[in-house]
Amino acid sequence: MFYRCRCPAHSQCVLCDLQNMGARNVCLMTDRTLSQLPPVGVVLDSLTKHGVKYKIYEDVRVEPTDKSFKAAIDFAKQGHFDVYVAVGGGSVIDTCKAANLYASHPEAEFLDFVNAPIGKGKPITATLKPLIAVPTTAGTGSETTGVAIFDFENLKAKTGIANRALKPTLGMVDPLHTLHMPSRVAANSGFDVLCHALESFTALPYNLRSPCPSNPINRPAYQGSNPISDVWARHALKIVAKYLKRAVRDAGDVEARSSMHLASVFAGIGFGNAGVHLCHGMSYPIAGNVKTHRAKGYNVEHPIVPHGLSVVLTSPAVFAFTANMCPERHLEAAQILGTDVSSIKKDDAGRVLADTLRSFLYDLEVEDGLSSVGYTKEDIPSLVKGTIPQERVTKLSPRAHTEEDLTALFAASMKLY
Amino acid sequence: MFYRCRCPAHSQCVLCDLQNMGARNVCLMTDRTLSQLPPVGVVLDSLTKHGVKYKIYEDVRVEPTDKSFKAAIDFAKQGHFDVYVAVGGGSVIDTCKAANLYASHPEAEFLDFVNAPIGKGKPITATLKPLIAVPTTAGTGSETTGVAIFDFENLKAKTGIANRALKPTLGMVDPLHTLHMPSRVAANSGFDVLCHALESFTALPYNLRSPCPSNPINRPAYQGSNPISDVWARHALKIVAKYLKRAVRDAGDVEARSSMHLASVFAGIGFGNAGVHLCHGMSYPIAGNVKTHRAKGYNVEHPIVPHGLSVVLTSPAVFAFTANMCPERHLEAAQILGTDVSSIKKDDAGRVLADTLRSFLYDLEVEDGLSSVGYTKEDIPSLVKGTIPQERVTKLSPRAHTEEDLTALFAASMKLY
Ligand SMILES: NC(=O)c1ccc[n+]([C@@H]2O[C@H](COP(=O)([O-])OP(=O)(O)OC[C@H]3O[C@@H](n4cnc5c(N)ncnc54)[C@H](O)[C@@H]3O)[C@@H](O)[C@H]2O)c1
Ligand SMILES: NC(=O)c1ccc[n+]([C@@H]2O[C@H](COP(=O)([O-])OP(=O)(O)OC[C@H]3O[C@@H](n4cnc5c(N)ncnc54)[C@H](O)[C@@H]3O)[C@@H](O)[C@H]2O)c1
Ligand SMILES: [Fe+2]
Ligand SMILES: [Fe+2]
Repeated sequence: MFYRCRCPAHSQCVLCDLQNMGARNVCLMTDRTLSQLPPVGVVLDSLTKHGVKYKIYEDVRVEPTDKSFKAAIDFAKQGHFDVYVAVGGGSVIDTCKAANLYASHPEAEFLDFVNAPIGKGKPITATLKPLIAVPTTAGTGSETTGVAIFDFENLKAKTGIANRALKPTLGMVDPLHTLHMPSRVAANSGFDVLCHALESFTALPYNLRSPCPSNPINRPAYQGSNPISDVWARHALKIVAKYLKRAVRDAGDVEARSSMHLASVFAGIGFGNAGVHLCHGMSYPIAGNVKTHRAKGYNVEHPIVPHGLSVVLTSPAVFAFTANMCPERHLEAAQILGTDVSSIKKDDAGRVLADTLRSFLYDLEVEDGLSSVGYTKEDIPSLVKGTIPQERVTKLSPRAHTEEDLTALFAASMKLY
Repeated sequence: MFYRCRCPAHSQCVLCDLQNMGARNVCLMTDRTLSQLPPVGVVLDSLTKHGVKYKIYEDVRVEPTDKSFKAAIDFAKQGHFDVYVAVGGGSVIDTCKAANLYASHPEAEFLDFVNAPIGKGKPITATLKPLIAVPTTAGTGSETTGVAIFDFENLKAKTGIANRALKPTLGMVDPLHTLHMPSRVAANSGFDVLCHALESFTALPYNLRSPCPSNPINRPAYQGSNPISDVWARHALKIVAKYLKRAVRDAGDVEARSSMHLASVFAGIGFGNAGVHLCHGMSYPIAGNVKTHRAKGYNVEHPIVPHGLSVVLTSPAVFAFTANMCPERHLEAAQILGTDVSSIKKDDAGRVLADTLRSFLYDLEVEDGLSSVGYTKEDIPSLVKGTIPQERVTKLSPRAHTEEDLTALFAASMKLY
């Protein structure tokens, strides 16, 4: 991660970096909201002014699907680009990662690199083109990770591609780009940061993961919580506790929005290394089974349960469930989020963190549970079914779980308050 | 950074990693003390047992010189190795980095890559061979940095080679390797961690560095303090405050020694990115002008002021000098080191941090200033002269300084208590 000098000539400008990468034919990816806004504008201006050849792809779907990934891949294949620039939230950055990957591997079938058991999880052998990620939300940390997530429509659940080769070459983290985020985008992407931090902090410790790979080269990308990811998780959580409410309430609060932007990077480095677990695993079918829910602030034509919301709605139930495996960490998290835990017993760690999260979400006017984004008890079996193949993440849960446990967790998340 | 499972078959063993790197002809570098100890023993055993061809170089000089670097380089050139393994402290890891560099660049003169203005600071164009660093001290963080330091004997000051290409491919951070460290090696290498953390935390902020490079590719390796290095610096400092005394007093205190080992990695990542400043810049002539001083616990035949000691002896004077530029950070550091700063005025930040450091050093039975390692007032001009060419680091001092300032800082460091 580099920190750029902030002189007007260099902040926000990716031109020098593009030139250093030898760019002659740039692919700029974004979505239709951002293409009208300054984060894209400054990039376009400098490309045009300096006569750099580029094509813009603005059809990224907010919360991408296999279909929308494929459309972007086709565009990339036809363009023969030598550098990619992704300006947007996780949807844009993830789409751009996939486009770069499959354009560099033209012979591959779409499922080849998708995580097993849904896809084939094949190794990536080609060298990808450089990708510069310019995040405009304070959420996914996708600029730091080797992950690209999409909604697999047939399956009614999200899945993804996870490989270190997808890590962007450069992340351009300019907090001014987040000042345009609508309040609910700031809130939902902030919940993503909150859950990345909480889940990586409570993930199965690296030395308890089993089976132990017979060769270090077979270590999974998600290694379990460890002393380095802990540093990032704790730090990100502290920033969320201090700044998320301010960042949501006042788009002009530059200190709060800047701090949240950095927290998203920090939590991304942490979870990209340690992994996430149940909130994320369960969120994939919550997003994928969406019926008619619309989300304020999301300028899109399709029903949507935004990622951060789909993740956070189960968080009180999840951490009440996992707490007994590492109560100290659950209590520490509650304390960082503002609860006095000095006289709390370990046995109560789960309840206390769950209550802390509920009141945090209530203050931020979050929808009252899965029932308020369109789900009823009848949907639980489909939600459980969509969670089963998410092993890649759910196996990092500190507590082993059965289908009955998942059923109970979804049921307990129907209403929060 | 990867965390390895701790099953007996894998911890401490570098064999799989070597095989994954396709090693057929390994160079194992170490020094004559370590070659008799378990950290080297386990590596040798597994190489022998599995029939991996290797050569061992055990002539690394503790606190290397240009001459000792050149001897190791010759060995490397003759061996045509395809992977390097460095098992030891900073002296071993730095020597191995240099050997790998010049063996990969056989046409280069020794001064070609040495930092300007002493050397030519040329760019490194060859691809180096993989290097696995196995640190056995809890100090330099050399396993994380692109830096190799040596004492340039003609100059009577240390200098080095600083380039990202020197970063080890893999760091194997096994705290059990540090249990053999003699108490004074634990103390001195711990002071190195302390100063890496304090200097990177108080270094000139990245956005005040000037001149601003006209192209981001020209950014120096040392970028100034920034929000990411701050995380590492603060965290390392907290560990030093909690564990250094225990690690020094009891070699069997596994928790304390393990924690310090991680702190050295953390501080290394931080300073490798932000830089260090005056304590390190001034330490290079303190080490290089050594006359007759011998250091307890260092099993070597030449006079030596160990690196960590040479750095920490000026720390009270240095931070008293820099405090006014960022008093909050100096106070925060004093607080982390255990001083109640709640009623301290900003103007007193320098005095308070200096006093905190003095009492910390006193408790750890550190020599009473430069005078007790053999220097007198008459030596100050040579010490100042040896600091001048250390601009690469000293320019990261938050406070600009003249030769008179340096003179005063050395004078103030003659006695500490
Ligand atoms: N790759 C990873 O590591 C990772 C991690 C977590 C989530 N994700 C994925 O990322 C996606 C969610 O990304 P997200 O939360 O960043 O949101 P997003 O990219 O879906 O964007 C949400 C909405 O906000 C708008 N928007 C974004 N930035 C804006 C700005 N600065 N000003 C105005 N409007 C702006 C977008 O146009 C869109 O309408 C999901 O698909 C999720 O699964 C990926
Ligand atoms: N590259 C960098 O980023 C960087 C940073 C700081 C310092 N340095 C350099 O590193 C060198 C100092 O390295 P160091 O402080 O790690 O010490 P060192 O490598 O000089 O070792 C000091 C002594 O301790 C012994 N020793 C080391 N580990 C041991 C163990 N586990 N058990 C028993 N004995 C052990 C050594 O044999 C030696 O006698 C200096 O030359 C310094 O300039 C480099
Ligand atoms: Fe997420
Ligand atoms: Fe050092």
